[in-house]
Amino acid sequence: MSASSADSGLLRRTVAAVVPPDPAAISDARLRQAQLTKPPGALGVLEDASLALCGIQGTCPPRPLVRPVVAVFAGDHGVHAQGVSPWPQEVTAAMVANFRAGGAAVNVLARQVGADVLVVDMGVAADLDPGTDLLDRKIGRGTADLATGPAMTRAEAERGLAAGIEVAHLLVDRGHDVLLTGDMGIGNTTPSAALVAAFTGADAAAVTGRGTGVDDATHERKVDVVRRALRARPVGDDPVETLASLGGFEHAGLAGLVLGGAARGVPVILDGVIAGAAALVAQALAPDAVGYCFAGHRSVEPGHTVALERLGLRPLVDLDLRLGEGTGAVLALPIVQAAGATLREMATFDSAGVARKDGRR
Amino acid sequence: MSASSADSGLLRRTVAAVVPPDPAAISDARLRQAQLTKPPGALGVLEDASLALCGIQGTCPPRPLVRPVVAVFAGDHGVHAQGVSPWPQEVTAAMVANFRAGGAAVNVLARQVGADVLVVDMGVAADLDPGTDLLDRKIGRGTADLATGPAMTRAEAERGLAAGIEVAHLLVDRGHDVLLTGDMGIGNTTPSAALVAAFTGADAAAVTGRGTGVDDATHERKVDVVRRALRARPVGDDPVETLASLGGFEHAGLAGLVLGGAARGVPVILDGVIAGAAALVAQALAPDAVGYCFAGHRSVEPGHTVALERLGLRPLVDLDLRLGEGTGAVLALPIVQAAGATLREMATFDSAGVARKDGRR
Repeated sequence: MSASSADSGLLRRTVAAVVPPDPAAISDARLRQAQLTKPPGALGVLEDASLALCGIQGTCPPRPLVRPVVAVFAGDHGVHAQGVSPWPQEVTAAMVANFRAGGAAVNVLARQVGADVLVVDMGVAADLDPGTDLLDRKIGRGTADLATGPAMTRAEAERGLAAGIEVAHLLVDRGHDVLLTGDMGIGNTTPSAALVAAFTGADAAAVTGRGTGVDDATHERKVDVVRRALRARPVGDDPVETLASLGGFEHAGLAGLVLGGAARGVPVILDGVIAGAAALVAQALAPDAVGYCFAGHRSVEPGHTVALERLGLRPLVDLDLRLGEGTGAVLALPIVQAAGATLREMATFDSAGVARKDGRR
Repeated sequence: MSASSADSGLLRRTVAAVVPPDPAAISDARLRQAQLTKPPGALGVLEDASLALCGIQGTCPPRPLVRPVVAVFAGDHGVHAQGVSPWPQEVTAAMVANFRAGGAAVNVLARQVGADVLVVDMGVAADLDPGTDLLDRKIGRGTADLATGPAMTRAEAERGLAAGIEVAHLLVDRGHDVLLTGDMGIGNTTPSAALVAAFTGADAAAVTGRGTGVDDATHERKVDVVRRALRARPVGDDPVETLASLGGFEHAGLAGLVLGGAARGVPVILDGVIAGAAALVAQALAPDAVGYCFAGHRSVEPGHTVALERLGLRPLVDLDLRLGEGTGAVLALPIVQAAGATLREMATFDSAGVARKDGRR
């Protein structure tokens, strides 16, 4: 069996293994929320999150999330040659070194909440030092330029998806009970915008933002690149082909992570627009996979809001972040943990002897 | 010296002790943010919060916030007699017992982030069991009915403010380095709406919400109560008189806590509309006190959004909560902690050897 058919076989099996979150556990959680000492609905989105967590884990109350990990998928992008980012491409590799040294924002935030950070090299355009803190899943030294042709071959896209699925299995097997998505790749808001446009039908201008801070001319160039790519290679019904045409290696890995997490019944907290674009790929392959995802935050990138709408996810944090790395997912983790804790630890009206609304006991 | 003049003396001295956050520390923080390995501004509101924290503590990088405490100010309200809440008044005391037993939402969320919970009895209409987990600052067994006359005497309002200031000193002296506001009081969204209307000039209908869940008829009654009270006792220039006329004992205590925290240079994380209304009292007495506050969250109550606008604070969490107790403040704590951590722990472009935007090193 060739590597490619092994990859597509794993993808097929994983998609088939994604079942809807457990309706019985969600129903139990809804009943239990109604007994807790608070007005019905007073915990807002926290209540929704607590139900989702029960559905994902298939049990109520949900188990505490005690072994969080941020998987930072890194890759470079041929479209960088189009001048879509003011940052040199070598910054991808330099930031990977920064992650491994513990000095980046995601490391700092992860330490605050006790989450591990693991970098997955999906295709950085440089040789990275090996080590146990890095998973080498390099598919190539950056994708091809999506402005001039498909960013990946179909086999590369499948390899990336399979790698992400395998990372999910590896992390769950290591005992991690919640997966947070991170990403690093200079130029990766451009393929993200292209994927969001492709999967939602939105106009290029509506989904293409300023990434880490580009000027008007660069922004226009980004919009133009996205529009031309979509026009040159119209999107068909095959999500893997769309991913190959427009995406990045890290998008493939992230989409795989979502599918793998969903197949294993483990919650996935998505970061920003790169994760959102990748989740659209996962959704197209296995619609129920979205039921295992929390939207960590809403990024400034306009494409992220469009992606979240299509995913049907409400962001837990909305603080004008536009950094990536997984920072928004990490900030949301305590909120998801708190949601679960309410179902485990809050007193009920009966146990606390508190009168209900309208005096009913 | 009478108790009343001692209270007003403490209030006067505290107001005088509130100085603006340290501009030099804020300036240092701004410079340091620009050196961290991320695009300028990419951490959004987290960067603003990190600057604010430095200004509050008067140092950059800021000290970690390691001893958080939620001070839950509890009181009852004469206006309950107007039928503004579907919950029996005895629920205030029952929920205080629930807080002390550790079974309420705020306890659960506080345990998740390592925060202590302390209840301050400002005026619950019941005799509460004494204990070290309760501060007895009871001013009366509930306020008078604001629908028919002033809710408090001026002396009671001053006693409440002084009690809140003393609680702030007590908590800071015990080593707490960040104060989170909590509240409990059946019916307390009605005085909150009245205070917000009084301090912002907004119409009663624009600031009066459904609290913990009232029907249309009850909501109309609430709006009518607020409107009639404002008409019967027009607001003058004296914030203490306004507080006495419309507020609750817990509002007085919370306003004092904000003033005391600001005077001690300790950050205060505000919860929802009750804290927002109390912060308006503090702002009217000492405008610089707001510089020591973070808006923990935005509640569903419309008056809260109006209050936040007047305070000039952007909420850190926005998840449709409408519970009170301090739950929104507790959810925001990890975000404030994360903001401070970025300044302490992130690598700089120079230290990490990462190229800057446009290739500049």
